[in-house]
Amino acid sequence: MAQIVEITDTDDPRLADYRDLRDVQLRKNLEAEHGLFLAEGEKVVRRAVEAGFTARSFLMAPRWLDGLADVLDRSEAPCFVLAEKLAEEVTGFHVHRGSLASLERRPLPTVESVLAGARSVLVLEDIVDHTNVGAIFRSGAALGFDAVLLAPRCADPLYRRSIKVGMGAVFTMPWTRLPDWTNALPDLTAAGFTTVALTLADDAVAIEEAVAGLDRVALVLGSEGHGLSKRWEEAADRRAVIPMREGIDSLNVAAATAVACYITARR
Amino acid sequence: MAQIVEITDTDDPRLADYRDLRDVQLRKNLEAEHGLFLAEGEKVVRRAVEAGFTARSFLMAPRWLDGLADVLDRSEAPCFVLAEKLAEEVTGFHVHRGSLASLERRPLPTVESVLAGARSVLVLEDIVDHTNVGAIFRSGAALGFDAVLLAPRCADPLYRRSIKVGMGAVFTMPWTRLPDWTNALPDLTAAGFTTVALTLADDAVAIEEAVAGLDRVALVLGSEGHGLSKRWEEAADRRAVIPMREGIDSLNVAAATAVACYITARR
Repeated sequence: MAQIVEITDTDDPRLADYRDLRDVQLRKNLEAEHGLFLAEGEKVVRRAVEAGFTARSFLMAPRWLDGLADVLDRSEAPCFVLAEKLAEEVTGFHVHRGSLASLERRPLPTVESVLAGARSVLVLEDIVDHTNVGAIFRSGAALGFDAVLLAPRCADPLYRRSIKVGMGAVFTMPWTRLPDWTNALPDLTAAGFTTVALTLADDAVAIEEAVAGLDRVALVLGSEGHGLSKRWEEAADRRAVIPMREGIDSLNVAAATAVACYITARR
Repeated sequence: MAQIVEITDTDDPRLADYRDLRDVQLRKNLEAEHGLFLAEGEKVVRRAVEAGFTARSFLMAPRWLDGLADVLDRSEAPCFVLAEKLAEEVTGFHVHRGSLASLERRPLPTVESVLAGARSVLVLEDIVDHTNVGAIFRSGAALGFDAVLLAPRCADPLYRRSIKVGMGAVFTMPWTRLPDWTNALPDLTAAGFTTVALTLADDAVAIEEAVAGLDRVALVLGSEGHGLSKRWEEAADRRAVIPMREGIDSLNVAAATAVACYITARR
């Protein structure tokens, strides 16, 4: 059972995992160095623990203790309890639903193990926005995709904001980083997947047509701003577009992913 | 042609429209009182002016003057130019792509005029997040919807963040507020629309089935947290769900809207 530790001093060194949550660069370094990630909000904290991640500690306002009592019962990590105002001083922002957990990252699985048994896979090249990464995991999970592969520069799906927007989908959806950007798509083709790049390229066909009748599909998505790299766009087995109204040529990447996942899952 | 006014004092009263952009409540009051809204970023500022909105003024860093020269040429409003650092002091945040415009709101059109000729309409009950409102306008516009109706408590689509996320779709998509929440859906039915509520209600059918063969459709969306009100859910002619993976029962409202719009537009 988690030990409840009341904290009254915001400089307490035991709160180190929770400092300055709005400073993205600082957090990236700290989380990488210590191999941790943060979950925020009762639902997401519960899902992280239920998915088997080991908690380093919890931090919450007194009124959230009851809601998470069952989770704390099953954990050996300390639970730091402090007034909401003090929690905000430590973290630098309003803590959503008053609860946070710091959890241990796990070694990333191999690409092979993530792809084993998967029939529909999302491949994200350089999605830089954590909100979009979280939204894509959530839509992929809800709409029948089996795994997610991330190019080396894609934003971290275990960053607090990604997890929150994704409602914890990153805990249950198998995913990993692609070690090799250069040959990632040919490697997927060799592994038996048809790679379908979402793009506005001239030879792109409607997404329904691109995925019709395919068995294993890897849906490939580019960056929010400039889309896919030339290399990936050309390396994909097929190029596909979501048909849009005349004169409009773009959807938000999260919206486009939702539509593409829905269509692909029904191929 | 816009008069270029160099500003060196952040307390200059002519900058009043641009103060404290991160304070949502203060901005709401200020914008309502003065009948203004703010557009942010070169693309969105250009789209606002091209859509015929009258600028009260522009505010930008020197290096953005050239990019918007054609827009400034056609406007009579002053353009306040100040160093990026000073602009951030006034607005309280990093100004995306260095340019802002303050524009005059217009009287909202009647529901009848917004519905005239429309075949596919989105009806938003209480979407409270400006990002979601913007994303919904963008997806609706791209995926073939003709108009948007907002319940009285739905977030403002002309709020800076909504406009930016929506890439200015709110400037070209016909929309208005419903004056009467209580009878909004029966009124739409009387106007010849089949109202289809997106919900997890027990009698909800798959969205494809719900919209198949319909002529005029009003797709009805509820709040991010608790979904549609009981009244609206029951008043809708049909209740529909986006089929999801076993054990998962929710999509982000913006993702769900994109999928539902795509399917409905192809009915």
